[in-house]
Amino acid sequence: MVNLGTTQQVALRQTAHALADAARPVTLKHFRSLGLSADNKDVGGFDPVTAADRGAEQAMRAVLAEMRPHDGILGEEFGDVASQSGLTWVLDPIDGTRGFISGTPTWGVLIAVSDASGPRFGIIDQPYIGERFEGGFGHAVMTGPHGSFDLQTRGGRALSEATLFTTFPEVGRDVDRSGFEAVRDRVQLVRYGMDCYAYALLAAGQIDLVIEAGLHPYDIHGPIAVIKASGGIITDWRGRPANAGGQVIAAGSPEIHTQALALLEPFADD
Amino acid sequence: MVNLGTTQQVALRQTAHALADAARPVTLKHFRSLGLSADNKDVGGFDPVTAADRGAEQAMRAVLAEMRPHDGILGEEFGDVASQSGLTWVLDPIDGTRGFISGTPTWGVLIAVSDASGPRFGIIDQPYIGERFEGGFGHAVMTGPHGSFDLQTRGGRALSEATLFTTFPEVGRDVDRSGFEAVRDRVQLVRYGMDCYAYALLAAGQIDLVIEAGLHPYDIHGPIAVIKASGGIITDWRGRPANAGGQVIAAGSPEIHTQALALLEPFADD
Repeated sequence: MVNLGTTQQVALRQTAHALADAARPVTLKHFRSLGLSADNKDVGGFDPVTAADRGAEQAMRAVLAEMRPHDGILGEEFGDVASQSGLTWVLDPIDGTRGFISGTPTWGVLIAVSDASGPRFGIIDQPYIGERFEGGFGHAVMTGPHGSFDLQTRGGRALSEATLFTTFPEVGRDVDRSGFEAVRDRVQLVRYGMDCYAYALLAAGQIDLVIEAGLHPYDIHGPIAVIKASGGIITDWRGRPANAGGQVIAAGSPEIHTQALALLEPFADD
Repeated sequence: MVNLGTTQQVALRQTAHALADAARPVTLKHFRSLGLSADNKDVGGFDPVTAADRGAEQAMRAVLAEMRPHDGILGEEFGDVASQSGLTWVLDPIDGTRGFISGTPTWGVLIAVSDASGPRFGIIDQPYIGERFEGGFGHAVMTGPHGSFDLQTRGGRALSEATLFTTFPEVGRDVDRSGFEAVRDRVQLVRYGMDCYAYALLAAGQIDLVIEAGLHPYDIHGPIAVIKASGGIITDWRGRPANAGGQVIAAGSPEIHTQALALLEPFADD
């Protein structure tokens, strides 16, 4: 773990906000615009990549070139930059591109600064609503159209009382879907369609579980930082760090995490 | 159809906005609050009713008692008021209560003023984001955090290129799910979880189809007015008016509506 003093923590937090600020006008310029184009990056499926996605990552990389030239970059859209400092910025310029091209306000810009131990500070930013969820270095807070609020996950409820989110009912491969459904059948309420916004709702104490699969590191480093700083637990389906992505479970309390993990483990990757 | 001159149209539109304005602080007071309680209205299932739901409808009824004492009221939470004018206000104080209690910003306050012919003017209001979609009396517009925009559904694409929304993958009864899946298997992109917000996205030209079932009149009168004024088509699964609720299909263009309806009709109620 890179040792970071208070001054460095402040500088990193400022950089993270500068990145989110730089991405906002780029994504908003294209959101809901009629001229929105979508390439097809994944020949076998449907993975839209928009001008907004590329433009927002370029805007963030320009900020990093100026403010943090010795840090590494791991982004969704462009090549990796090796770290000379031990710190790497993990960027997903638009998490939830399918939601983005459908006009829903639940996609997000994901930003994290990570070292070999994992994410140290992260942001989930929703530019259209104007909401920013941040966590790390000992604090967790969201700022939105109705003010700023401390983030704190909720506990004190059984799995049978839990609210569970995932993005789409197929979840991923058949085994991923089977694991999800094992938990789905034991909770009170299941909702779909929120992409990274579900992790923000978990951090804000609104829901209890998010279960997804097939994630990339850039899909999850930002949420990991925000959820951990808010008191939540986020791991893979075997309870190990989720830094590499893949099968992910986030829970508001250790009790719910333990109960859900027991149901997921038969379907967990090695 | 009640004959409405320009002055009356202006008055009705002002009343509709006054209703939405009255509901906003009530819903926002309770949204994402930790003290949110949920009764269980439907003994057989899970239908949360919150203090926000009841309070918002009471606030709107108080406005109507003042501004439109001779109009009728059909609301979700309280008893019907008979109309003496031929006009009835159809109110759903929180459409998407499951989304509301989960903290998602995609529930809405639905307001319509209807006569025997159906909705004449309607609003879909999203208080947290501060977005209002309105349609009727010859105009359709949305006002949100980034300005005001005319609403216009989109056309010019085949069913195979369409984006389809419904709120949850079970849709309703088995027959409702089978009808939905017949269309789902023919479109490009399917998304879930947006409740009434999906109708707003259709009116705004962001998506092509919304298919739902088991709706009440107060779930759909507001969306009918907004979608029709935006150039869209909204009917039941046999192509008849959707004023009574039940199985509903909304489409951005007549072509997509016709293609989807042909797939739904084998599963349509009489």
